[in-house]
Amino acid sequence: MLLAAGMMTACAESKVEKEECKNTDACAAVIENIMTRTSIRQFTDQPIAKDTLDLLVKAGMAAPSAMNAQPWAFIIVTEKEVLDSLNVIKPWFNLKTATAAIIVCGNMDKTGEGVGKEYWVQDCSAATENILLAAHAYGLGAVWCGVYPNPEIVPGVCRVLEIPENIIPLNVVTLGYPAENPEPKDKFKTENIHYQKW
Amino acid sequence: MLLAAGMMTACAESKVEKEECKNTDACAAVIENIMTRTSIRQFTDQPIAKDTLDLLVKAGMAAPSAMNAQPWAFIIVTEKEVLDSLNVIKPWFNLKTATAAIIVCGNMDKTGEGVGKEYWVQDCSAATENILLAAHAYGLGAVWCGVYPNPEIVPGVCRVLEIPENIIPLNVVTLGYPAENPEPKDKFKTENIHYQKW
Repeated sequence: MLLAAGMMTACAESKVEKEECKNTDACAAVIENIMTRTSIRQFTDQPIAKDTLDLLVKAGMAAPSAMNAQPWAFIIVTEKEVLDSLNVIKPWFNLKTATAAIIVCGNMDKTGEGVGKEYWVQDCSAATENILLAAHAYGLGAVWCGVYPNPEIVPGVCRVLEIPENIIPLNVVTLGYPAENPEPKDKFKTENIHYQKW
Repeated sequence: MLLAAGMMTACAESKVEKEECKNTDACAAVIENIMTRTSIRQFTDQPIAKDTLDLLVKAGMAAPSAMNAQPWAFIIVTEKEVLDSLNVIKPWFNLKTATAAIIVCGNMDKTGEGVGKEYWVQDCSAATENILLAAHAYGLGAVWCGVYPNPEIVPGVCRVLEIPENIIPLNVVTLGYPAENPEPKDKFKTENIHYQKW
Protein backbone atom coordinates (compact mmCIF):
# COMPACT_ATOMS: atom_id res chain seq x y z
CA MET A 1 0.00 0.00 0.00
CA LEU A 2 2.49 2.56 1.18
CA LEU A 3 4.97 1.26 -1.35
CA ALA A 4 2.60 0.83 -4.24
CA ALA A 5 3.07 4.13 -5.99
CA GLY A 6 5.67 6.84 -6.06
CA MET A 7 7.56 5.40 -3.14
CA MET A 8 11.02 5.98 -4.50
CA THR A 9 10.44 9.67 -5.12
CA ALA A 10 8.44 10.12 -1.93
CA CYS A 11 11.41 8.91 0.07
CA ALA A 12 13.38 12.13 -0.05
CA GLU A 13 10.52 14.28 1.08
CA SER A 14 8.76 12.27 3.76
CA LYS A 15 9.52 9.70 6.39
CA VAL A 16 13.09 8.82 5.58
CA GLU A 17 15.64 11.48 6.33
CA LYS A 18 17.77 12.62 3.44
CA GLU A 19 20.95 11.17 4.86
CA GLU A 20 19.32 7.75 4.83
CA CYS A 21 18.75 8.01 1.08
CA LYS A 22 22.32 8.80 0.19
CA ASN A 23 23.21 5.31 -0.97
CA THR A 24 21.03 3.72 -3.61
CA ASP A 25 17.33 3.63 -4.36
CA ALA A 26 17.34 -0.02 -3.26
CA CYS A 27 18.84 0.86 0.11
CA ALA A 28 16.31 3.67 0.56
CA ALA A 29 13.48 1.28 -0.27
CA VAL A 30 14.63 -1.19 2.37
CA ILE A 31 15.00 1.47 5.08
CA GLU A 32 11.66 3.09 4.14
CA ASN A 33 9.97 -0.31 4.35
CA ILE A 34 11.38 -0.94 7.85
CA MET A 35 10.48 2.55 9.09
CA THR A 36 6.92 2.64 7.71
CA ARG A 37 5.79 -0.85 8.73
CA THR A 38 3.12 -0.67 11.41
CA SER A 39 0.48 -3.04 12.78
CA ILE A 40 -2.71 -3.34 10.69
CA ARG A 41 -5.83 -4.87 12.24
CA GLN A 42 -8.62 -4.08 9.76
CA PHE A 43 -8.69 -5.65 6.33
CA THR A 44 -10.64 -5.59 3.07
CA ASP A 45 -12.17 -8.79 1.68
CA GLN A 46 -9.57 -9.02 -1.11
CA PRO A 47 -7.92 -12.45 -0.81
CA ILE A 48 -4.15 -12.88 -0.81
CA ALA A 49 -2.72 -14.99 -3.66
CA LYS A 50 -1.21 -18.32 -2.61
CA ASP A 51 2.07 -17.38 -4.34
CA THR A 52 2.29 -14.29 -2.17
CA LEU A 53 1.66 -16.21 1.06
CA ASP A 54 4.29 -18.76 0.04
CA LEU A 55 6.71 -15.91 -0.64
CA LEU A 56 6.12 -14.48 2.83
CA VAL A 57 7.01 -17.82 4.37
CA LYS A 58 10.05 -18.07 2.13
CA ALA A 59 11.15 -14.68 3.46
CA GLY A 60 10.71 -16.10 6.95
CA MET A 61 13.00 -19.02 6.17
CA ALA A 62 15.69 -16.58 5.01
CA ALA A 63 16.18 -15.44 8.62
CA PRO A 64 19.34 -16.38 10.48
CA SER A 65 19.18 -19.05 13.19
CA ALA A 66 21.53 -20.15 15.94
CA MET A 67 23.89 -22.80 14.57
CA ASN A 68 21.80 -22.63 11.38
CA ALA A 69 19.30 -24.94 13.06
CA GLN A 70 16.29 -23.46 11.19
CA PRO A 71 14.01 -24.66 14.01
CA TRP A 72 10.82 -23.33 12.43
CA ALA A 73 7.62 -24.36 10.69
CA PHE A 74 4.77 -22.31 9.25
CA ILE A 75 1.05 -22.93 9.00
CA ILE A 76 -0.70 -20.84 6.36
CA VAL A 77 -4.41 -20.46 7.07
CA THR A 78 -6.86 -18.97 4.57
CA GLU A 79 -10.09 -20.88 5.31
CA LYS A 80 -12.58 -18.63 7.03
CA GLU A 81 -13.73 -21.41 9.32
CA VAL A 82 -10.22 -22.00 10.68
CA LEU A 83 -9.56 -18.28 11.06
CA ASP A 84 -12.82 -17.95 13.01
CA SER A 85 -11.92 -20.89 15.25
CA LEU A 86 -8.60 -19.25 16.06
CA ASN A 87 -10.27 -15.94 16.76
CA VAL A 88 -12.53 -17.57 19.34
CA ILE A 89 -9.40 -18.40 21.38
CA LYS A 90 -8.36 -14.76 21.55
CA PRO A 91 -10.25 -11.96 19.82
CA TRP A 92 -7.07 -9.90 19.83
CA PHE A 93 -5.74 -12.17 17.12
CA ASN A 94 -7.69 -9.59 15.06
CA LEU A 95 -8.82 -12.30 12.64
CA LYS A 96 -12.38 -11.04 12.22
CA THR A 97 -11.72 -9.34 8.88
CA ALA A 98 -8.39 -11.05 8.09
CA THR A 99 -8.15 -13.10 4.89
CA ALA A 100 -5.14 -15.12 6.04
CA ALA A 101 -2.86 -15.92 8.94
CA ILE A 102 0.59 -17.44 9.21
CA ILE A 103 1.29 -19.27 12.44
CA VAL A 104 5.03 -19.29 13.10
CA CYS A 105 6.02 -22.37 15.09
CA GLY A 106 9.14 -23.70 16.75
CA ASN A 107 10.12 -27.27 15.89
CA MET A 108 11.63 -28.80 19.03
CA ASP A 109 13.12 -31.65 16.98
CA LYS A 110 15.36 -29.12 15.22
CA THR A 111 16.64 -27.02 18.12
CA GLY A 112 20.12 -27.40 19.53
CA GLU A 113 20.94 -29.22 22.73
CA GLY A 114 21.34 -27.74 26.22
CA VAL A 115 21.27 -23.96 26.25
CA GLY A 116 21.06 -24.08 22.45
CA LYS A 117 17.51 -25.33 22.88
CA GLU A 118 16.49 -21.86 24.10
CA TYR A 119 17.38 -20.00 20.91
CA TRP A 120 14.38 -21.16 18.87
CA VAL A 121 12.29 -18.23 20.15
CA GLN A 122 14.87 -15.77 18.84
CA ASP A 123 15.20 -17.60 15.51
CA CYS A 124 11.45 -17.77 14.96
CA SER A 125 11.08 -14.12 15.97
CA ALA A 126 13.61 -13.12 13.31
CA ALA A 127 11.64 -15.18 10.79
CA THR A 128 8.44 -13.44 11.90
CA GLU A 129 9.95 -9.99 11.41
CA ASN A 130 10.98 -11.01 7.88
CA ILE A 131 7.38 -12.03 7.19
CA LEU A 132 6.05 -8.70 8.48
CA LEU A 133 8.51 -6.71 6.39
CA ALA A 134 7.85 -8.75 3.25
CA ALA A 135 4.09 -8.36 3.78
CA HIS A 136 4.46 -4.59 4.08
CA ALA A 137 6.54 -4.48 0.91
CA TYR A 138 3.74 -6.34 -0.89
CA GLY A 139 1.18 -3.79 0.25
CA LEU A 140 -0.32 -6.17 2.79
CA GLY A 141 -1.19 -5.33 6.36
CA ALA A 142 -0.16 -7.56 9.23
CA VAL A 143 -0.03 -7.73 12.99
CA TRP A 144 2.11 -10.01 15.18
CA CYS A 145 -0.09 -11.60 17.87
CA GLY A 146 1.87 -13.40 20.58
CA VAL A 147 1.01 -16.97 21.53
CA TYR A 148 3.98 -18.66 23.30
CA PRO A 149 4.70 -18.62 26.22
CA ASN A 150 1.16 -17.69 27.28
CA PRO A 151 -0.27 -20.91 28.83
CA GLU A 152 -3.82 -19.61 28.32
CA ILE A 153 -3.40 -19.44 24.54
CA VAL A 154 -0.93 -22.12 23.42
CA PRO A 155 -3.20 -25.17 24.02
CA GLY A 156 -6.13 -23.67 22.11
CA VAL A 157 -4.03 -22.85 19.06
CA CYS A 158 -2.52 -26.36 19.13
CA ARG A 159 -6.00 -27.90 19.30
CA VAL A 160 -7.52 -25.87 16.45
CA LEU A 161 -4.53 -26.40 14.14
CA GLU A 162 -3.88 -30.02 15.21
CA ILE A 163 -0.30 -29.18 16.09
CA PRO A 164 1.74 -32.16 17.35
CA GLU A 165 3.58 -32.24 20.67
CA ASN A 166 7.05 -31.40 19.39
CA ILE A 167 5.82 -28.17 17.74
CA ILE A 168 5.12 -24.93 19.64
CA PRO A 169 3.14 -22.06 18.09
CA LEU A 170 5.04 -18.83 18.78
CA ASN A 171 2.58 -16.37 17.27
CA VAL A 172 -0.23 -15.71 14.85
CA VAL A 173 0.65 -13.27 12.07
CA THR A 174 -2.72 -11.87 11.02
CA LEU A 175 -2.81 -10.80 7.35
CA GLY A 176 -4.92 -9.07 4.73
CA TYR A 177 -5.08 -6.07 2.45
CA PRO A 178 -5.35 -2.99 4.70
CA ALA A 179 -8.69 -1.30 5.35
CA GLU A 180 -6.97 1.25 7.57
CA ASN A 181 -3.91 3.42 7.10
CA PRO A 182 -2.53 4.33 10.53
CA GLU A 183 0.52 6.54 10.83
CA PRO A 184 3.60 4.49 11.78
CA LYS A 185 4.63 5.12 15.39
CA ASP A 186 7.81 7.12 15.89
CA LYS A 187 9.62 4.94 18.42
CA PHE A 188 13.07 6.47 18.10
CA LYS A 189 14.41 7.44 21.53
CA THR A 190 17.98 8.62 22.00
CA GLU A 191 17.81 7.45 25.62
CA ASN A 192 17.85 3.88 24.26
CA ILE A 193 21.31 4.33 22.74
CA HIS A 194 24.57 3.99 24.64
CA TYR A 195 28.07 4.33 23.24
CA GLN A 196 31.05 2.07 24.04
CA LYS A 197 29.63 1.08 27.44
CA TRP A 198 26.31 1.45 29.25
CA MET B 1 27.95 -4.54 -0.98
CA LEU B 2 25.47 -6.79 -2.70
CA LEU B 3 23.15 -3.86 -3.16
CA ALA B 4 25.72 -1.27 -4.06
CA ALA B 5 25.53 -1.48 -7.83
CA GLY B 6 23.08 -2.72 -10.39
CA MET B 7 20.84 -4.37 -7.85
CA MET B 8 17.56 -3.32 -9.35
CA THR B 9 18.39 -4.73 -12.77
CA ALA B 10 20.09 -7.80 -11.36
CA CYS B 11 16.90 -8.70 -9.54
CA ALA B 12 15.07 -10.16 -12.51
CA GLU B 13 17.90 -12.39 -13.53
CA SER B 14 19.36 -13.75 -10.33
CA LYS B 15 18.29 -14.63 -6.82
CA VAL B 16 14.76 -13.30 -6.77
CA GLU B 17 12.28 -15.18 -8.92
CA LYS B 18 10.44 -13.18 -11.52
CA GLU B 19 7.10 -13.53 -9.76
CA GLU B 20 8.58 -11.81 -6.75
CA CYS B 21 9.46 -8.78 -8.86
CA LYS B 22 6.01 -8.30 -10.30
CA ASN B 23 5.06 -5.44 -8.02
CA THR B 24 7.36 -2.48 -7.80
CA ASP B 25 11.10 -1.94 -7.83
CA ALA B 26 10.83 -0.99 -4.16
CA CYS B 27 9.11 -4.24 -3.29
CA ALA B 28 11.70 -6.21 -5.24
CA ALA B 29 14.48 -4.38 -3.40
CA VAL B 30 13.00 -5.31 -0.02
CA ILE B 31 12.56 -8.97 -0.93
CA GLU B 32 16.01 -9.16 -2.52
CA ASN B 33 17.53 -7.66 0.63
CA ILE B 34 15.82 -10.25 2.84
CA MET B 35 16.77 -13.16 0.56
CA THR B 36 20.44 -12.19 0.07
CA ARG B 37 21.32 -11.31 3.69
CA THR B 38 23.79 -13.79 5.11
CA SER B 39 26.18 -13.85 8.05
CA ILE B 40 29.50 -12.06 7.50
CA ARG B 41 32.42 -12.72 9.86
CA GLN B 42 35.42 -11.15 8.13
CA PHE B 43 35.72 -7.41 7.71
CA THR B 44 37.91 -4.76 6.14
CA ASP B 45 39.41 -1.98 8.26
CA GLN B 46 37.04 0.65 6.83
CA PRO B 47 35.22 2.25 9.76
CA ILE B 48 31.42 2.64 9.83
CA ALA B 49 30.16 6.23 10.05
CA LYS B 50 28.41 7.13 13.31
CA ASP B 51 25.33 8.26 11.35
CA THR B 52 25.08 4.82 9.80
CA LEU B 53 25.36 3.04 13.16
CA ASP B 54 22.69 5.34 14.59
CA LEU B 55 20.46 4.56 11.62
CA LEU B 56 20.84 0.83 12.23
CA VAL B 57 19.69 1.28 15.81
CA LYS B 58 16.83 3.48 14.62
CA ALA B 59 15.78 0.63 12.32
CA GLY B 60 15.88 -1.64 15.37
CA MET B 61 13.53 0.64 17.28
CA ALA B 62 11.05 0.50 14.38
CA ALA B 63 10.33 -3.15 15.23
CA PRO B 64 6.99 -4.12 16.73
CA SER B 65 6.82 -5.05 20.41
CA ALA B 66 4.19 -6.71 22.59
CA MET B 67 1.81 -4.06 23.95
CA ASN B 68 4.17 -1.52 22.33
CA ALA B 69 6.43 -1.88 25.38
CA GLN B 70 9.63 -1.18 23.38
CA PRO B 71 11.62 -3.07 26.03
CA TRP B 72 14.99 -2.56 24.35
CA ALA B 73 18.26 -0.68 24.61
CA PHE B 74 21.31 -0.66 22.33
CA ILE B 75 25.00 -0.29 23.03
CA ILE B 76 27.07 0.80 20.04
CA VAL B 77 30.72 -0.17 20.39
CA THR B 78 33.42 1.07 18.03
CA GLU B 79 36.49 1.28 20.30
CA LYS B 80 38.94 -1.46 19.46
CA GLU B 81 39.78 -2.03 23.11
CA VAL B 82 36.14 -2.71 24.04
CA LEU B 83 35.62 -4.95 21.00
CA ASP B 84 38.72 -6.91 21.98
CA SER B 85 37.51 -7.27 25.57
CA LEU B 86 34.21 -8.67 24.33
CA ASN B 87 35.97 -11.06 21.99
CA VAL B 88 37.95 -12.51 24.90
CA ILE B 89 34.64 -13.69 26.41
CA LYS B 90 33.73 -15.67 23.31
CA PRO B 91 35.91 -15.73 20.17
CA TRP B 92 32.83 -16.65 18.16
CA PHE B 93 31.62 -13.09 18.59
CA ASN B 94 33.84 -12.77 15.49
CA LEU B 95 35.03 -9.35 16.64
CA LYS B 96 38.66 -9.81 15.64
CA THR B 97 38.34 -7.81 12.42
CA ALA B 98 35.02 -6.10 13.21
CA THR B 99 34.95 -2.30 13.28
CA ALA B 100 31.77 -2.09 15.36
CA ALA B 101 29.23 -4.05 17.35
CA ILE B 102 25.71 -3.32 18.49
CA ILE B 103 24.67 -5.10 21.67
CA VAL B 104 20.88 -5.48 21.72
CA CYS B 105 19.61 -5.54 25.29
CA GLY B 106 16.30 -6.14 27.04
CA ASN B 107 15.23 -3.51 29.57
CA MET B 108 13.41 -5.32 32.37
CA ASP B 109 11.96 -2.03 33.62
CA LYS B 110 9.99 -1.72 30.37
CA THR B 111 8.58 -5.23 29.96
CA GLY B 112 4.97 -6.09 30.74
CA GLU B 113 3.82 -7.87 33.89
CA GLY B 114 3.20 -11.59 34.38
CA VAL B 115 3.45 -13.58 31.15
CA GLY B 116 3.95 -10.25 29.33
CA LYS B 117 7.40 -10.15 30.89
CA GLU B 118 8.46 -13.03 28.65
CA TYR B 119 7.93 -11.23 25.35
CA TRP B 120 11.02 -9.03 25.54
CA VAL B 121 13.13 -11.73 23.87
CA GLN B 122 10.78 -11.77 20.87
CA ASP B 123 10.63 -7.97 20.70
CA CYS B 124 14.40 -7.58 20.87
CA SER B 125 14.86 -10.35 18.29
CA ALA B 126 12.59 -8.48 15.87
CA ALA B 127 14.67 -5.36 16.49
CA THR B 128 17.85 -7.35 15.83
CA GLU B 129 16.53 -8.64 12.51
CA ASN B 130 15.74 -5.07 11.47
CA ILE B 131 19.34 -4.12 12.30
CA LEU B 132 20.72 -7.02 10.23
CA LEU B 133 18.53 -6.14 7.25
CA ALA B 134 19.35 -2.43 7.43
CA ALA B 135 23.06 -3.26 7.67
CA HIS B 136 22.84 -5.45 4.58
CA ALA B 137 21.03 -2.70 2.69
CA TYR B 138 23.88 -0.34 3.57
CA GLY B 139 26.45 -2.76 2.19
CA LEU B 140 27.64 -3.75 5.64
CA GLY B 141 28.28 -7.26 6.85
CA ALA B 142 26.90 -8.52 10.14
CA VAL B 143 26.47 -11.63 12.22
CA TRP B 144 24.04 -12.21 15.13
CA CYS B 145 25.94 -13.79 18.02
CA GLY B 146 23.70 -15.07 20.80
CA VAL B 147 24.32 -14.07 24.42
CA TYR B 148 21.14 -14.57 26.51
CA PRO B 149 20.19 -17.04 27.93
CA ASN B 150 23.67 -18.60 27.98
CA PRO B 151 24.84 -18.31 31.63
CA GLU B 152 28.45 -18.72 30.54
CA ILE B 153 28.35 -15.56 28.41
CA VAL B 154 25.85 -13.10 29.93
CA PRO B 155 27.93 -12.14 33.02
CA GLY B 156 31.08 -11.41 31.00
CA VAL B 157 29.27 -9.14 28.56
CA CYS B 158 27.61 -7.31 31.48
CA ARG B 159 30.98 -6.82 33.15
CA VAL B 160 32.82 -5.51 30.07
CA LEU B 161 30.01 -3.12 29.10
CA GLU B 162 29.11 -2.11 32.70
CA ILE B 163 25.50 -3.16 32.14
CA PRO B 164 23.24 -2.59 35.18
CA GLU B 165 21.14 -5.30 36.79
CA ASN B 166 17.82 -4.49 35.13
CA ILE B 167 19.33 -4.81 31.64
CA ILE B 168 20.02 -8.16 29.90
CA PRO B 169 22.23 -8.40 26.80
CA LEU B 170 20.43 -10.58 24.25
CA ASN B 171 23.11 -10.66 21.59
CA VAL B 172 26.15 -9.08 20.00
CA VAL B 173 25.60 -7.93 16.41
CA THR B 174 29.10 -7.92 14.95
CA LEU B 175 29.55 -5.35 12.16
CA GLY B 176 31.92 -4.11 9.51
CA TYR B 177 32.41 -3.72 5.79
CA PRO B 178 32.63 -7.25 4.35
CA ALA B 179 35.98 -8.83 3.52
CA GLU B 180 34.22 -11.99 2.34
CA ASN B 181 31.32 -12.57 -0.01
CA PRO B 182 29.70 -15.91 0.85
CA GLU B 183 26.73 -17.17 -1.14
CA PRO B 184 23.49 -16.77 0.85
CA LYS B 185 22.22 -20.14 2.10
CA ASP B 186 19.10 -21.46 0.40
CA LYS B 187 16.98 -22.40 3.41
CA PHE B 188 13.64 -22.77 1.66
CA LYS B 189 12.08 -26.14 2.49
CA THR B 190 8.55 -26.99 1.43
CA GLU B 191 8.36 -29.49 4.31
CA ASN B 192 8.27 -26.47 6.66
CA ILE B 193 4.97 -25.24 5.21
CA HIS B 194 1.55 -26.52 6.21
CA TYR B 195 -1.82 -25.34 4.91
CA GLN B 196 -4.92 -24.72 7.02
CA LYS B 197 -3.84 -27.17 9.74
CA TRP B 198 -0.68 -29.07 10.60
